[in-house]
Amino acid sequence: MRVGVLGSGVVGKVLAAGFARHGHEVMIGSRSPETLADWLQENPGVGSGLFGDTAAFADLVVLAVKGTAASKALELAGKDNHAGKPVIDATNPISDEPPVNGVLRFFTNLDESLMEQLQKQYPRTKFVKAFSSVSNARMVNPRFEGGRPSMFICGNDEAAKALVTEVLDQFGWDTEDMGAVEAARAIEPLCMLYCIPGFTRDQWTHAFKLLK
Amino acid sequence: MRVGVLGSGVVGKVLAAGFARHGHEVMIGSRSPETLADWLQENPGVGSGLFGDTAAFADLVVLAVKGTAASKALELAGKDNHAGKPVIDATNPISDEPPVNGVLRFFTNLDESLMEQLQKQYPRTKFVKAFSSVSNARMVNPRFEGGRPSMFICGNDEAAKALVTEVLDQFGWDTEDMGAVEAARAIEPLCMLYCIPGFTRDQWTHAFKLLK
Repeated sequence: MRVGVLGSGVVGKVLAAGFARHGHEVMIGSRSPETLADWLQENPGVGSGLFGDTAAFADLVVLAVKGTAASKALELAGKDNHAGKPVIDATNPISDEPPVNGVLRFFTNLDESLMEQLQKQYPRTKFVKAFSSVSNARMVNPRFEGGRPSMFICGNDEAAKALVTEVLDQFGWDTEDMGAVEAARAIEPLCMLYCIPGFTRDQWTHAFKLLK
Repeated sequence: MRVGVLGSGVVGKVLAAGFARHGHEVMIGSRSPETLADWLQENPGVGSGLFGDTAAFADLVVLAVKGTAASKALELAGKDNHAGKPVIDATNPISDEPPVNGVLRFFTNLDESLMEQLQKQYPRTKFVKAFSSVSNARMVNPRFEGGRPSMFICGNDEAAKALVTEVLDQFGWDTEDMGAVEAARAIEPLCMLYCIPGFTRDQWTHAFKLLK
C-alpha cells in the first residue's frame, strides 16, 4: 500500500517509519522536505515530498500535524489529491494556551470535534480518527504486560475504517470502532487524559485498553 | 465508615448496596425516602432519609444524581452538612438532548467541567470524581479476564483522594489519580466514550484500563 504521511514532526516520522517497517511504500510530506535529508538517510525506504506530492502519491493518507495546522495542511495537500481516499486523522485540537494543572486546553468544544470540522471542510475525504490518544513512544507495536492496547477509532466510511483496522492490527493494536464522525467528540479528549501523567509526572509510556 | 449516598436511582442503589456489602454504615438519601421501602427491605443494612439527613450522617458522601440535578441536590443536602467532607462525584453533565449517533450531549464544555462548577459553588466540600465512567452493572467488584480496571479520579484534596482510593481498592478497582479538579474536563468525557457501545450495540459491561 502507498502511504503518504502529511507532517514531519516526531509523530509523522514515527508513523512513517512504522509503515515502512511493515512493508508499505511510504512518502513523508513536509512544507520543506529538504530539511528531512538526515532522517531520510536513516530511513532508506521512505521518500519525501511536498504535501501535494505526498497526498497524490498515497492510497492511504496520514494526517500528523498540529491540530491548529490540520485544515491548512489538507488545503496545501490539495483537496482533489485526498478526495475519496482514507485519511487517518491523528491530530488533536490542542490550543496554544498552556495546560492547566497538566490538563491541555482544546480549541474545540464537546459539541463539535476537530475531525467533524475537517469532515465538513473536505466532505469527499474519508477521515478515520486513530493514533490520537497515545504518545509517539507507544504508537508502533507497543508491548504491555496487560496485552494489546485498544485504539478507539471513528469515521463515516466503513471501508476506510476496515482498512485502518487492518493497519492497527499490523501495528499491534485492538480496534474499538466507536461509530460515526461525532464520536471524535469523545475520542479527542482522551488526548487530554493521556497527557496528564505526562505533564504532571513525565509518564508517557501508557496506553488505554477496553476490558470486556 | 458512615457513607451517605445522595440519589436513589439505580446508580445510588448499586453504590449504597456496595458500601453496605463492604461493611460500611450506609444511608441512602432521596427527596421522597418513603418510595424506597421495598428496596430497603431487600437491603437490610441500609437506612434512608432526606438529602439533609443523609449528608449530616455521613463521613463520606456519594453524589449519585443526574448531572442536571447535581447542584440542587447539594443545596438540598445543606452546604454545612457536606462542608469539609469528602464527596465522591459520580455525576456526568449529560444534557436532556438526545445522543447523536450514540454520542451523549453534555451541557458543559472542555474548559469547565461539571465538577469544577460544583467545586466553585461549594468551596469547602472536598469533591473527588469517581465512578463516572462505568455503568452500574460494573461498579462494584467487576471481574474481567484482563485484570482490574482503572478508575480515573481527580480532586483538590489529597486526603479525600486517599480515602476514595481505599474505597476503590475495596470495590476492585485500580486508581489512577489525574490530579486537581480541572482533570474532570478529561474524565467526564469518558462517559461519552463509555456509552457509545451501549447506545449503538447495547454493550454496557466494559471498563477502561490504563496499561503501563
